[in-house]
Amino acid sequence: MKIDFITLFPEMFDGFLSTSIIKRAVENKHVDFSCIDFRKYGIGRHRIVDDTPYGGGAGMLLKPEPIYQAIENLDPLPGVTPRIIIVDPIGKVFNQKLAQELAEEDHLVFICGHYEGFDERVRHLATDHISIGDYVLTGGELPSMVMSDAIVRLLPEVLGNEGSAQFDSFSDDLLEHPHYTRPAEFNGMEVPDVLRSGNHALIEEWRDKESLRRTYCHRPDLLEGLELSSQQKKWLKEFKENQ
Amino acid sequence: MKIDFITLFPEMFDGFLSTSIIKRAVENKHVDFSCIDFRKYGIGRHRIVDDTPYGGGAGMLLKPEPIYQAIENLDPLPGVTPRIIIVDPIGKVFNQKLAQELAEEDHLVFICGHYEGFDERVRHLATDHISIGDYVLTGGELPSMVMSDAIVRLLPEVLGNEGSAQFDSFSDDLLEHPHYTRPAEFNGMEVPDVLRSGNHALIEEWRDKESLRRTYCHRPDLLEGLELSSQQKKWLKEFKENQ
Repeated sequence: MKIDFITLFPEMFDGFLSTSIIKRAVENKHVDFSCIDFRKYGIGRHRIVDDTPYGGGAGMLLKPEPIYQAIENLDPLPGVTPRIIIVDPIGKVFNQKLAQELAEEDHLVFICGHYEGFDERVRHLATDHISIGDYVLTGGELPSMVMSDAIVRLLPEVLGNEGSAQFDSFSDDLLEHPHYTRPAEFNGMEVPDVLRSGNHALIEEWRDKESLRRTYCHRPDLLEGLELSSQQKKWLKEFKENQ
Repeated sequence: MKIDFITLFPEMFDGFLSTSIIKRAVENKHVDFSCIDFRKYGIGRHRIVDDTPYGGGAGMLLKPEPIYQAIENLDPLPGVTPRIIIVDPIGKVFNQKLAQELAEEDHLVFICGHYEGFDERVRHLATDHISIGDYVLTGGELPSMVMSDAIVRLLPEVLGNEGSAQFDSFSDDLLEHPHYTRPAEFNGMEVPDVLRSGNHALIEEWRDKESLRRTYCHRPDLLEGLELSSQQKKWLKEFKENQ
């Protein structure tokens, strides 16, 4: 997979690209990242990329021309049309299903706005308008990293032994069950007996049940529209009765 | 405001802390960031911070002791109890209202998990469990930066001339209206006449209406429970009729 970040702040990506799972995914050539500083397409000797808004108002806006030029000068893979994603509060909200969909692509481009926003016509460049949540951020850089992280860890072979994406929260639409490691007792808090029992069938059942309990207690909205097994329905009834 | 990141990957924060609005907020002493590498509280000569899960399964878990020690060794402000935030898929979902609430605090601590997750008992350390959205990430570092960015830009005097937080999407519960800057025509796309009219009352009205239209078209869920003005109700009726 190829991922391009169109940004005025390429240095913001350094730590992300050189750490942990992303670093290894790059080293192992599962993904190839480029940061394209669109200031190089800025206008005139001063490489202007922003201007005041028509109609007045606080702040500056990113002009359309430099970003259009950055997109025109992309280095596309042969025969591949890139998905061009703009980080955009009016976009659909990013979630695990969208991460899975984007992980099927060969080339992703993230356009990162900054400050007050971008000229409306920049929106027409994008194939996708995506928001990572209902909050206001300074720029699209952090959201682009967030999305890339969620996407790249779904690529085949990227996660390796460090854990399998299929057991994470949201990957089967439920929250993850609790995890425990040593010590068995810490500050008066004990690891549940069942996890130390060695009985794998019981452990599996406990985990399934706690995963459902968590989802029911903390994010009941995630249960809407899910097809539950008869065991899960029985557990839900039990949680409701014990409330 | 003081913000501590408890993390195994302090270098991931370098770009964030040295760029743009956050950089300036630090220089102007509106906020003081520290990255605390809890590996220094790791166990034994090898500073072990993780271990295999009880009950079996893929991946490693963060042990409780090093993170508890990192919290015990915080440098709190006199008379201030810090809000200790764990980045957690079972937490409540971060939004602009929560950013506003956290911007009132004097000391925030973000506990960043990594890999498969942390021992359940780490959850008990936190005053807040917060998720930035329904997707799986490698660690809590990016979400901590996302939340810090949203929070710090709400602190008094941080934004300065670059734009006022009060006009952003979500800050009045609606999405932002479109923005345009020069050129007046670009690739056949024109700036709406009203924005070039110089009539401030009309411009204001256009912006209010487009803000409502966007929210209605793209995120109608944001309108639920809002108290709308009679003008806004009239516009909504018009949008519905023209659909």
